[in-house]
Amino acid sequence: MNAEQECRFFIPGPTWVRPEILRAMGRPMIGHRSAEFKQLFRGIVDDLKPLFATRQHTFVATCSGTGLMEASLVNCVPRRVLVTTCGAFSERWAAIAESLGLEVDRLDVEWGMAVDPEMLADHLASHRAHYDAVTITHNETSTGVTNDLAALARVIHEESPGTLVLVDAVSSVAGIPVLFDEWGLDVCFASVQKGVALPPGVTLFAVSEQAMQRVEKRPYRGAYFDFLQYKKHAEDGGVPSTPSIPHFFALAEQLDAILRKETLEARFRRHEAMRDLTIRQTSTYAKLASGPTHASPTVSALAPVKDPEALRSEMKKRGFTLGSGYGKWKATTFRIGHMGDTPMASLEAMLKVLGEVALA
Amino acid sequence: MNAEQECRFFIPGPTWVRPEILRAMGRPMIGHRSAEFKQLFRGIVDDLKPLFATRQHTFVATCSGTGLMEASLVNCVPRRVLVTTCGAFSERWAAIAESLGLEVDRLDVEWGMAVDPEMLADHLASHRAHYDAVTITHNETSTGVTNDLAALARVIHEESPGTLVLVDAVSSVAGIPVLFDEWGLDVCFASVQKGVALPPGVTLFAVSEQAMQRVEKRPYRGAYFDFLQYKKHAEDGGVPSTPSIPHFFALAEQLDAILRKETLEARFRRHEAMRDLTIRQTSTYAKLASGPTHASPTVSALAPVKDPEALRSEMKKRGFTLGSGYGKWKATTFRIGHMGDTPMASLEAMLKVLGEVALA
Repeated sequence: MNAEQECRFFIPGPTWVRPEILRAMGRPMIGHRSAEFKQLFRGIVDDLKPLFATRQHTFVATCSGTGLMEASLVNCVPRRVLVTTCGAFSERWAAIAESLGLEVDRLDVEWGMAVDPEMLADHLASHRAHYDAVTITHNETSTGVTNDLAALARVIHEESPGTLVLVDAVSSVAGIPVLFDEWGLDVCFASVQKGVALPPGVTLFAVSEQAMQRVEKRPYRGAYFDFLQYKKHAEDGGVPSTPSIPHFFALAEQLDAILRKETLEARFRRHEAMRDLTIRQTSTYAKLASGPTHASPTVSALAPVKDPEALRSEMKKRGFTLGSGYGKWKATTFRIGHMGDTPMASLEAMLKVLGEVALA
Repeated sequence: MNAEQECRFFIPGPTWVRPEILRAMGRPMIGHRSAEFKQLFRGIVDDLKPLFATRQHTFVATCSGTGLMEASLVNCVPRRVLVTTCGAFSERWAAIAESLGLEVDRLDVEWGMAVDPEMLADHLASHRAHYDAVTITHNETSTGVTNDLAALARVIHEESPGTLVLVDAVSSVAGIPVLFDEWGLDVCFASVQKGVALPPGVTLFAVSEQAMQRVEKRPYRGAYFDFLQYKKHAEDGGVPSTPSIPHFFALAEQLDAILRKETLEARFRRHEAMRDLTIRQTSTYAKLASGPTHASPTVSALAPVKDPEALRSEMKKRGFTLGSGYGKWKATTFRIGHMGDTPMASLEAMLKVLGEVALA
């Protein structure tokens, strides 16, 4: 590993970006209605299919993951939504749904726990109200918990057929398997500054045919996030309005690297190995805040014996950036992002120094 | 001018980007809640004040100009809006307002004409209906027309006090004067891939205190484009959700270059000189489609004697990219973007070749 390829940046997004990808962000401009852009666009849209394991619709939007959270609700929920929560980002679904004037029910579990499929089944069975959609946060970045998305989606299909499954996969896609078609998801989105390891600025998403048909019946859904506009323009090799062209340059290169150089399988294994190494190496001075059963392969929230802010500050002095705790866990935890293109060797080197600092 | 600084790219956005700015897009990541980002953010927000000539609120959103068009309507229009149109982009306001379920009146002039302040005054005086807002497109990119924004805003204030003035300044800001406070504008936004000469991906905007107070009374305005969220987060040195950090790096550098190296005054003069040169050099083989009175300093739509697509294709073979006609003018015109950082010498060199091709 040469110095340029060394990562000292471990926050749970934006993650470290490889120098080659940073350079791709700086290519000279092309027009977004040009033949050159159409070719770039079509290659990306094709590569998003294996990334989400889908044969249905895939797109890129110029906005953050939060934008797609709103887009999912605006396009797919005329009236009523059930929000499952287990941390700060899953709670954001509820805040946005309320800001849109929707009827919102919540199924909450404690921070650090995963959403329980049986609890969800019971809730759906006992509530006679029909939900247009249920929201799930695949990987809760604030607590380092990966929900069992396959099981949760199955429960929704069994207990409430016709209810759409809207999934925040912001910090899972390209780091943890997401099988859009097999699990019967309806909307699933991923920010690029996490598992995909690009600078932030665009969001990738998949939409099921079922969801697309539902959108057609939804009047007054605005224009910027209108899935039908995305579908229409994609057929012509483009997007509804001017996109972040630098991200398209970088994305084409990175999808090629993920799918054909490293391969998704190897990438998932590397993420599990990074999680296991992190848990093992920190166990003497920090407690995994989430508990081990649903520990995320992409981010660990750790409650250290020492003050977490002091620890982060000591590491900063040594050139390493770690993530702070989030929301109500801010004072008691810190987070290590081990996702994207982070090399194992960089993670090992950082954990060695962290151990020295924590045990000093 | 060295080869690296030579521009051969003349579409009306995205425009040519200086190599220094492209390199700034490729800087290593920082966290968007870090002290480093807060400092970057505050510098940018401060520099946006002179850019819009305002002391009121200024922001950066990760989306295209179309996103801010929707945001303006969602935040500021509870019920009824008057859309003034003179081309494809001003018509987009109406399409978006309708997609939001608003009541939309239109005041149309023919493509190539500017919106007439007297006509607007008559319309406002004769319609007893109250408009929450009037929309104006400062510089119509499809036809190369600059509307008299100062006069139009004055008419609205006189004939319909309390009606908000929403302005698309996508292809004017940093190329044509926009005096937000002096002209009494309420929302004004600019894409960065035009006069500001960055790659596309974020949109700059200003909001008046009056508009901000109006937003507070607007329920169910969503979250992604909520101006109050922007205001709240700006006070803490940030944005509501993860922004396109590369654009913030580039923007800080470019605002410094615009305001303190070239200066706005010199930049406006250079744009007028680029327009005048373009009109003069093309006059023997192309008619200015807009007529001369409101000819835009940033983009010219030209109806050539020869087939415009053949002309563009000949120029492409010689390494120069020109813009196609837009919408219903696609078959009869082509467009030259002369905006942003385009050096006069590059424009001169291109026009010389264009003249040879057109008169061959």
